[in-house]
Amino acid sequence: PKKKKVSYSNRGMTLEEDLNATNDYYLLRKQAVIHKKPIPIQVVNVDYPRRSAAKITEAYYKRASTTDYNGIYKGHYIDFEAKETRNKTSFPLKNFHDHQLTHMKMCHEHGGVCFVIIRFSTLNRVFLLNFPLLYKWWNQQFEEKGKKSIPLKEIETDAFEINYSLSPRLPYLKIVDQLISERNA
Amino acid sequence: PKKKKVSYSNRGMTLEEDLNATNDYYLLRKQAVIHKKPIPIQVVNVDYPRRSAAKITEAYYKRASTTDYNGIYKGHYIDFEAKETRNKTSFPLKNFHDHQLTHMKMCHEHGGVCFVIIRFSTLNRVFLLNFPLLYKWWNQQFEEKGKKSIPLKEIETDAFEINYSLSPRLPYLKIVDQLISERNA
Ligand SMILES: [Mg+2]
Ligand SMILES: [Mg+2]
Repeated sequence: PKKKKVSYSNRGMTLEEDLNATNDYYLLRKQAVIHKKPIPIQVVNVDYPRRSAAKITEAYYKRASTTDYNGIYKGHYIDFEAKETRNKTSFPLKNFHDHQLTHMKMCHEHGGVCFVIIRFSTLNRVFLLNFPLLYKWWNQQFEEKGKKSIPLKEIETDAFEINYSLSPRLPYLKIVDQLISERNA
Repeated sequence: PKKKKVSYSNRGMTLEEDLNATNDYYLLRKQAVIHKKPIPIQVVNVDYPRRSAAKITEAYYKRASTTDYNGIYKGHYIDFEAKETRNKTSFPLKNFHDHQLTHMKMCHEHGGVCFVIIRFSTLNRVFLLNFPLLYKWWNQQFEEKGKKSIPLKEIETDAFEINYSLSPRLPYLKIVDQLISERNA
């Protein structure tokens, strides 16, 4: 009988949900301690009802000053941003903010392992792009005839594809292992 | 003329404000990239008024699953909690939650530099207590006749006092340097 290929591809989950499940898996197995940072919120008003929890009644989203995830793996500081796009042929650089690149650049210079995880949601393909290459793409956009987005073809070359698996869902630390050994080489 | 001793002691600022100012200083000087994590908030309801920012109208504080601060310094993963007490003679261990200790223990085991910064606000004295010694104190409380708080006298012995300075306000990385060199020794 023909063997059916098992697909662990994303089933309507967001990249964030997949990464959080992956990080929970790594945490439970004591492989890494990596967490999503909470979304920064400016609290303006809080009600303190009797006998129940404080209720925030007025608050606003603030712009994050860093990236989505950080933590430690094999003694290395890990810092990364997660981004999704519905585009099919390229990743628009406008998805990043200046300060996120600045943050990653500083962490990289201090010896951290920094990267972005990009999901093409309509294609359901996920890539890990190491910071130095992301930075190259980021900078070329300001040059004459600079591209405003990274073509998928170039991502296929510059980045590592992360294939969905059963557990963890997005085994990105395998790729981090490669980044670490390349750096030590 | 008698020289007046300049005091940089805390002038009504919270420990968090002092640490944030200190981290800004370290960031600007490119000495370290260490940030306070946002407070985790569960958003229940959001209004989207025309022509103005999204307004959160119902939200609740969630319990933090990690510590207050993390980042990178000289290639090392740094992770710490900041705590204030109005007590004058001891630091109550109930200020910590189980999961905070668990988090620090895991980060420590992965090679991170983990500690707590404790401020005795009425005395205006600040100490850095390295994780292994904090953990010793944490565990003894569950033994027979275990202490429920760490006496200040013991903190003076086990911890490093951080003296306020003009800039940065709380030069804690000097002490982290010591922790790193002790570990490498
Ligand atoms: Mg993101
Ligand atoms: Mg705290």
